[in-house]
Amino acid sequence: MIYLDNAATTPVKPEALQAAWPWLTSEFGNPSSQHELGFRAKDALADARARVAKFFNAKASEIIFTSGGTESDNLGIVGLALAMPRGKHIVSARTEHEAVLQSLDYLQRVHGFEITWLPLDEFGQVSGLEAALRDETTLVTLMVANNEIGTLHPIAQLCAIAHARGALFHTDAVQAVGWVDQNVAELGVDALSISGHKFGAPKGSGALFLKGRTAAEPLIHGGGQESGLRSGTENVAWAVALATALELLTPAAAAAERVAKLRDDFIRSVLQATPNAILTGHPTNRLPNIASFCFDGVSGEALLLELERRGVIVSSGSACAAGSDEPSHVLTAIGIDAELAQTAVRFSFAHDTSAEDLQNAVGALSRAFEGFK
Amino acid sequence: MIYLDNAATTPVKPEALQAAWPWLTSEFGNPSSQHELGFRAKDALADARARVAKFFNAKASEIIFTSGGTESDNLGIVGLALAMPRGKHIVSARTEHEAVLQSLDYLQRVHGFEITWLPLDEFGQVSGLEAALRDETTLVTLMVANNEIGTLHPIAQLCAIAHARGALFHTDAVQAVGWVDQNVAELGVDALSISGHKFGAPKGSGALFLKGRTAAEPLIHGGGQESGLRSGTENVAWAVALATALELLTPAAAAAERVAKLRDDFIRSVLQATPNAILTGHPTNRLPNIASFCFDGVSGEALLLELERRGVIVSSGSACAAGSDEPSHVLTAIGIDAELAQTAVRFSFAHDTSAEDLQNAVGALSRAFEGFK
Repeated sequence: MIYLDNAATTPVKPEALQAAWPWLTSEFGNPSSQHELGFRAKDALADARARVAKFFNAKASEIIFTSGGTESDNLGIVGLALAMPRGKHIVSARTEHEAVLQSLDYLQRVHGFEITWLPLDEFGQVSGLEAALRDETTLVTLMVANNEIGTLHPIAQLCAIAHARGALFHTDAVQAVGWVDQNVAELGVDALSISGHKFGAPKGSGALFLKGRTAAEPLIHGGGQESGLRSGTENVAWAVALATALELLTPAAAAAERVAKLRDDFIRSVLQATPNAILTGHPTNRLPNIASFCFDGVSGEALLLELERRGVIVSSGSACAAGSDEPSHVLTAIGIDAELAQTAVRFSFAHDTSAEDLQNAVGALSRAFEGFK
Repeated sequence: MIYLDNAATTPVKPEALQAAWPWLTSEFGNPSSQHELGFRAKDALADARARVAKFFNAKASEIIFTSGGTESDNLGIVGLALAMPRGKHIVSARTEHEAVLQSLDYLQRVHGFEITWLPLDEFGQVSGLEAALRDETTLVTLMVANNEIGTLHPIAQLCAIAHARGALFHTDAVQAVGWVDQNVAELGVDALSISGHKFGAPKGSGALFLKGRTAAEPLIHGGGQESGLRSGTENVAWAVALATALELLTPAAAAAERVAKLRDDFIRSVLQATPNAILTGHPTNRLPNIASFCFDGVSGEALLLELERRGVIVSSGSACAAGSDEPSHVLTAIGIDAELAQTAVRFSFAHDTSAEDLQNAVGALSRAFEGFK
């Protein structure tokens, strides 16, 4: 099996599971308990928090553990929007992940917020942020890297523009961790979301970076865990696994350099091998590990099945739309018509994807196309 | 070690971890992915959901997996309150868990809800529900069993009263699972919260029963997982662990009968051995596995330490208030003064707690009191 669906989910790293193991077995204390078993769990949680913070060049007090990227996005957007008394205006883009779009929809429906959607070019790059900002703009939320087409946003620059007008900035970094350096001090963002299962930690692990003293209304209210921002008995094991998986990542720059070269070779080979292939997203300003195409005249679903028969596991787009038959909202937002969008296939790589894997994938793709003739 | 803090958290059952194992290792698919790896994860999730539903005599479509009891309470309360157009009035009691109280506080602060608090007797039993209900009452939320003093509420009866006036009924069953039969068809409730780590599933697992066709506004918006009510890539492993841990529970009636007898013997012995002990909560209408006391004139924290030195692990009350120095809100709500409330100690048993464990605990308690003289 050649697994090229790493943007959907990744295998748990054995070291992450091993590090979590004691906290699933003998060390089962509740971190809030006032006895040794509880104190040890509390210490493990604090240690995991410090390690996650270090990865992002943040303070430990700025890391909130959550149950995943979607929860992090909701807390980073709804939480900040409800706590910021400035106004009810938010700026975003229609290529964001559903976790962002549906959080914004909730703020519109239930809390009367207004959303300004930034213009997008054919590659999924935004423009016009400065013009979209108002005195009552509470928040700007734009992702680091798109999960379907891989296009990158210049977060530090966008964040500076938002801050100059007094708006907060949240970014969904779920797809970027391990591929683009996420130094929050350099990015300047007020909140940043990550999801463990995208980089070798288990499903159900995640975190939100929230810059010191930024007020947020919790999504989940209760006993006051996670500095009052995310109540509920802490999932110590998954916090430890998350920290461990982060530390095991190759430095982003090194991983990016190697895999970006593989990606470029792969894109070239696919465009050569299949004349009806069209690259989606930006040709160069994109995640090193995502190569995404539309294959004019071919059903993405059918192609996915043919590739799977040949041992190559890919996706027809985002896994997160839960088996929906709708064309990708990302592709339609960048001007691709619904019919062509139905032909989308995303190849997403891991740190250990090899040149040989990708040669084999191109071979499988060519043979699949032979079958369609 | 004699662990008598099972109401705070429980060890994960090895069988639950073993059942989860494939979904943490080779079977790492995203349940939304349209390939075999994803389909198998989706099937495992569906199977777990059916098994959890069976435990509660519910339909599979009525089970929503969450990250724990606190999230379940928030979704069951905030989610129902925001989706029910009837009005902005809720009825509850001040002895509820912080997850309930803080959800209600949020609805008051942010959404303008009004809360009516039911009268409580000295044992923590509520009265006056019928009189508290109004035409605009959206929801009644009352727990099955109190987590600090163990007192039980007659849920089926309270629920029928609420329904007769058209209000929905949510119950926090976090402490009751495994001890009091939670047959939702018999209880009649619209929503019921459970937390995996209270009965041998891992921390970070939980579920909400939501009766068919009951509308709810999600807390966590996104890709539409869990029937649109709880977005985010599903934690398949913990769903499987939760289902497995539930099935491993001794039938509630059998466990209750055995342990209630131990509890009664224990309470008698404690009252004999320590003249300043006062039982909190109802003498008989209480969870089989909670024996809770105030020890007039003795610091609960100091006693906890003395017991721990002797290998007996207990709690000074709820673990969920995260090391707070405040007296228990439950004890003050039932009329115990703040000073006496600071002397609280809770002993909470497991299905496998033995008579010998409890004799040893009484012995440790007597010796600890010797030391205080």
